[in-house]
Amino acid sequence: MRESVEPALDALRAYARTSGFNVLHGIELERAGSGEAELSMPWRPEAAQYQGFLHAGMIGALIDTACGCAAATVVGRVLASHYSVNCIRPAVGERFVVRARVVKAGRTVVFTAADVFSETEGKHTLVANGETILNVVGLPDS
Amino acid sequence: MRESVEPALDALRAYARTSGFNVLHGIELERAGSGEAELSMPWRPEAAQYQGFLHAGMIGALIDTACGCAAATVVGRVLASHYSVNCIRPAVGERFVVRARVVKAGRTVVFTAADVFSETEGKHTLVANGETILNVVGLPDS
Amino acid sequence: MRESVEPALDALRAYARTSGFNVLHGIELERAGSGEAELSMPWRPEAAQYQGFLHAGMIGALIDTACGCAAATVVGRVLASHYSVNCIRPAVGERFVVRARVVKAGRTVVFTAADVFSETEGKHTLVANGETILNVVGLPDS
Amino acid sequence: MRESVEPALDALRAYARTSGFNVLHGIELERAGSGEAELSMPWRPEAAQYQGFLHAGMIGALIDTACGCAAATVVGRVLASHYSVNCIRPAVGERFVVRARVVKAGRTVVFTAADVFSETEGKHTLVANGETILNVVGLPDS
Repeated sequence: MRESVEPALDALRAYARTSGFNVLHGIELERAGSGEAELSMPWRPEAAQYQGFLHAGMIGALIDTACGCAAATVVGRVLASHYSVNCIRPAVGERFVVRARVVKAGRTVVFTAADVFSETEGKHTLVANGETILNVVGLPDS
Repeated sequence: MRESVEPALDALRAYARTSGFNVLHGIELERAGSGEAELSMPWRPEAAQYQGFLHAGMIGALIDTACGCAAATVVGRVLASHYSVNCIRPAVGERFVVRARVVKAGRTVVFTAADVFSETEGKHTLVANGETILNVVGLPDS
Repeated sequence: MRESVEPALDALRAYARTSGFNVLHGIELERAGSGEAELSMPWRPEAAQYQGFLHAGMIGALIDTACGCAAATVVGRVLASHYSVNCIRPAVGERFVVRARVVKAGRTVVFTAADVFSETEGKHTLVANGETILNVVGLPDS
Repeated sequence: MRESVEPALDALRAYARTSGFNVLHGIELERAGSGEAELSMPWRPEAAQYQGFLHAGMIGALIDTACGCAAATVVGRVLASHYSVNCIRPAVGERFVVRARVVKAGRTVVFTAADVFSETEGKHTLVANGETILNVVGLPDS
């Protein structure tokens, strides 16, 4: 069994904030550890596709980012080689939450999956799911 | 054979601009017609992931948007049910260009594919590819 | 809410057996109902890729077939438009089991997911997962 | 630039025949070299899904096998981590042909794509496409 690499949540959160895209769209790491991660972002009109739903690119960004953070808690630095997104329902809400988990962390490849929920008046609705295949780059500097 | 539906380029361009996300990130429709579409966006730090490459979410947004425009030239309004992204090379450049094409437009499902290129000093490099599966919503109002 | 369509397990099992491929490879429906389905197949050398693991095509066949059966319990006849397979571990075992579930059954599109396990001396190991996007064709004859 | 590794076609063909699944279903390597590969298989009722079309698992097997052969001509031994299949048209014909190509061969990851055609009275029709992500295992013994 691989020994778990759990960077402190604060360190991983600071890391996620080095992404200009994440900062622009208010994507924040809420929780991370033990192969899981949760991120949130507020609804803003600048995140919309043409009908006013959350842009599929934003949904992909949430899935890719959350999967990367989940993987980072187990294997350190990773780079995505592939991700996919299922647009299950129109993504409309006050806020969006994505929960990712590591399915299998191998020596070089990490398989992850994520669910994206819209949040309206505290109620969560699954609006998308997806997966990311990541390659291990190395442990984080520390 | 399905009769082709080619909304004027200007109309489709105006339509793409109704997306807050597209406007924010400078995503512009360059060409569209006959089941093909090309979009561009400038490099900006707000589009970066943590290492300064184009965020994988932006790559997905380009693929999803270009595939949607390519499909719209053939079947009118569509909604993506699924898309996937292969991150082939680090996406670094002055500008990014995505070219999408319809692989097969069925009665209810449209299969599309797209290639994403970085552009630096006029040189194009394939940095990602992907595909989108779209469902036909209906012909555009006209 | 959509009313559930649960064909009797025997009917769905007989249906799965009308596939020459399923019969040849011993793929059997074990359970189906309420948006879930489980199938099994024995290990046989004719199902091997070149290293003696279960052929990735067989893994895809298990995922696609199980997802189709899971969807059929909710919406009747379906046709897959897309499926994907993650090869998580070498697929070696005495027998293989696949469990599929409906993630969301819409009016025209059904999203499903499945896990494939190898079985050796009663122990199950996750060797692959995947997903299938299906289009609703219609309710089963009855 | 990576130096190309082109195993003789006969060697790669013999290799493909070590797969029990490929032999059972008559999958034969027709051409391979320079990052491309073509395979064929005859139509047989044992390859059918329940409606008598080619089973989606067989389509996946063709895509996965052809992509693996295409990659092998460039980087030697590979193992698939992921593949996906788009079922574009009902797969009906006297014979099926799959053509795969390497999109990008990196140091550890190889991206490939493939098209599957049905053949009837010499006429080819695109019935499916797909892609495979492979990990480099090492150069073939020689």
